[in-house]
Amino acid sequence: MSRFLSSRYAGLTEYVPGEQPQDKQYIKLNTNESPYPPSPAVLNAINTAAVSQLNLYSDPDAKLLVNALAAQYGVGPENVFLSNGSDDILNFAFMAFCDGGVKFPEITYGFYTVYAALHGVAYETPALRPDFSIDPSDYYNAGCSVVLANPNAQTGVALPLTEIERIVRSNPDQVVVIDEAYVDFGGESAVPLTRQYDNLLVVQTFSKSRSMAGARLGFAIGPKGLIADLNKLKYSTNPYNLNRLTQLAGVAALSEQSYYDENCRRIMETRQYTRDALTALGFTCTNSQANFLLARTDAMDGETLYRKLKDRGILVRHFSDPLITDWVRITIGSQEQMETLVGVVEELVR
Amino acid sequence: MSRFLSSRYAGLTEYVPGEQPQDKQYIKLNTNESPYPPSPAVLNAINTAAVSQLNLYSDPDAKLLVNALAAQYGVGPENVFLSNGSDDILNFAFMAFCDGGVKFPEITYGFYTVYAALHGVAYETPALRPDFSIDPSDYYNAGCSVVLANPNAQTGVALPLTEIERIVRSNPDQVVVIDEAYVDFGGESAVPLTRQYDNLLVVQTFSKSRSMAGARLGFAIGPKGLIADLNKLKYSTNPYNLNRLTQLAGVAALSEQSYYDENCRRIMETRQYTRDALTALGFTCTNSQANFLLARTDAMDGETLYRKLKDRGILVRHFSDPLITDWVRITIGSQEQMETLVGVVEELVR
Repeated sequence: MSRFLSSRYAGLTEYVPGEQPQDKQYIKLNTNESPYPPSPAVLNAINTAAVSQLNLYSDPDAKLLVNALAAQYGVGPENVFLSNGSDDILNFAFMAFCDGGVKFPEITYGFYTVYAALHGVAYETPALRPDFSIDPSDYYNAGCSVVLANPNAQTGVALPLTEIERIVRSNPDQVVVIDEAYVDFGGESAVPLTRQYDNLLVVQTFSKSRSMAGARLGFAIGPKGLIADLNKLKYSTNPYNLNRLTQLAGVAALSEQSYYDENCRRIMETRQYTRDALTALGFTCTNSQANFLLARTDAMDGETLYRKLKDRGILVRHFSDPLITDWVRITIGSQEQMETLVGVVEELVR
Repeated sequence: MSRFLSSRYAGLTEYVPGEQPQDKQYIKLNTNESPYPPSPAVLNAINTAAVSQLNLYSDPDAKLLVNALAAQYGVGPENVFLSNGSDDILNFAFMAFCDGGVKFPEITYGFYTVYAALHGVAYETPALRPDFSIDPSDYYNAGCSVVLANPNAQTGVALPLTEIERIVRSNPDQVVVIDEAYVDFGGESAVPLTRQYDNLLVVQTFSKSRSMAGARLGFAIGPKGLIADLNKLKYSTNPYNLNRLTQLAGVAALSEQSYYDENCRRIMETRQYTRDALTALGFTCTNSQANFLLARTDAMDGETLYRKLKDRGILVRHFSDPLITDWVRITIGSQEQMETLVGVVEELVR
């Protein structure tokens, strides 16, 4: 830190992304990426002709991609906001809509506390239930903004749409942000509700179900007013926030939805296989509707399991948060990768 | 705007990027892009194999690209910061280093006033001299942070490095940001000074001389402390700020510096041709060291000239700012494009 940094930010504890070790090739089950590559249309869209036009700025409004997403989700272009990964949108949401404070679960995406600290937003973090589900009544008449990952980060546990709607309806004068990074693996999306409620913002990403974590593409769907607010912040920070190739890749991916639907189906099938196999080995797994499982065993603590798996070439994620320090978060990879994982785990716990 | 937007941002006037009309094909001389495509190594780097790995997150530290830039500029990796276009860095600089206010010229990059408003930073804007050069003494002992584009935006006029150093030295307790977006077209870079002064941050971009406006890649070079501060903000907002393909493209571009040096030489030659031709037609042009000219004629006002050129398929930039409303900013395109421009201008002013 320099002696020049504003005192507002000097005390910030920044977010720590999942490790990306370069020392050897791992079976990488630590950052909830898809094991499947982008669809053929994406591979075709990023060709030499596209690259040779990189000398020209990208369209700051990204009209083609906005229109494609609007068509896909049955909303208007004025209901779609795009950004360089969904983290950017969450950052804007904490910046724009949380002056009166915010509530989010005690166990959830670790970035929410960072955004709150960055923007000086007071926050409350209701505990989860013993089964790691969210108690929706904690968010009725919240008296402040609400941010919920659904399915929830780290646990994968989902709230039904009826409960999301009840939360949105009970907070008419507060913005409710639903972070649906993992919704395509069995959750229910709140996107249709954005047509009825002017206080609901739904955030999604191409990083998980759409196999484009490395392209950095997030989007929000919401009522016109909230989308206009996000655009005001975008055009006051970084108007050209999406590069040309990512915009092309996004449009191409949307043209092959069935490819991604099939990948999600396979991941959900592999998730069931993995959960059954780990349960048979004495593990407890959360009831995840996401592309990962949170799992624990009595045989060893979470950090030990993480280390032993890493020694054997399998990378999972362990969190130091005491509430889940007994657990590891395991991304659902390909069926083959998960069979390897199960085999290694079996050796470790036997 | 929604009823939910924080009152801090409700009054913001956002930045307006140069127009990107889709109604027909223009000779596009309005946003200071390079007329030349990226180098062959960039075209080769973005291949099907690279695209097929988009399912994996990019390296948040972008180590390969950081190391390549450090080698190119003779600094350490701890002296390099990367972002999704240089606007992101300027935003962070206003956020992090300008609590005590900031000074920048009355005519310069229009985004500086937006960043100041966004972060509640007080600013002073000393006037330029009649020839549109910056009076460096306006920035000695500034008593606040200093942000200078060098060469300056809109005018292209450059300060010599000795003057930049004098400004940096006279403000030892303030950060001085030198925005060198256009430095490769004849300016003198302050990068070597970053080894001696802990208060100097130099910002550059791949958007102009490196033909990658559409890839979104900016970087800062500076003392370790300031770079650490920028990283603190990056890891508190959007750690995965650079997508995989842009990282690959950046590394590839740096491997073919001579290609870009030759493009800069051609652009400077074409700039000289354009200035001479416009001067012969009675125009006044600023003494630009950038890849654009600011030009005016007594024959018509700036907006009229802009409109007449647009009608004839040539897009230049006109600013409503009364200080330069008589002028138009003309990007230096290829020699052929500029010969077309000169021919059309000749018809218009005759």
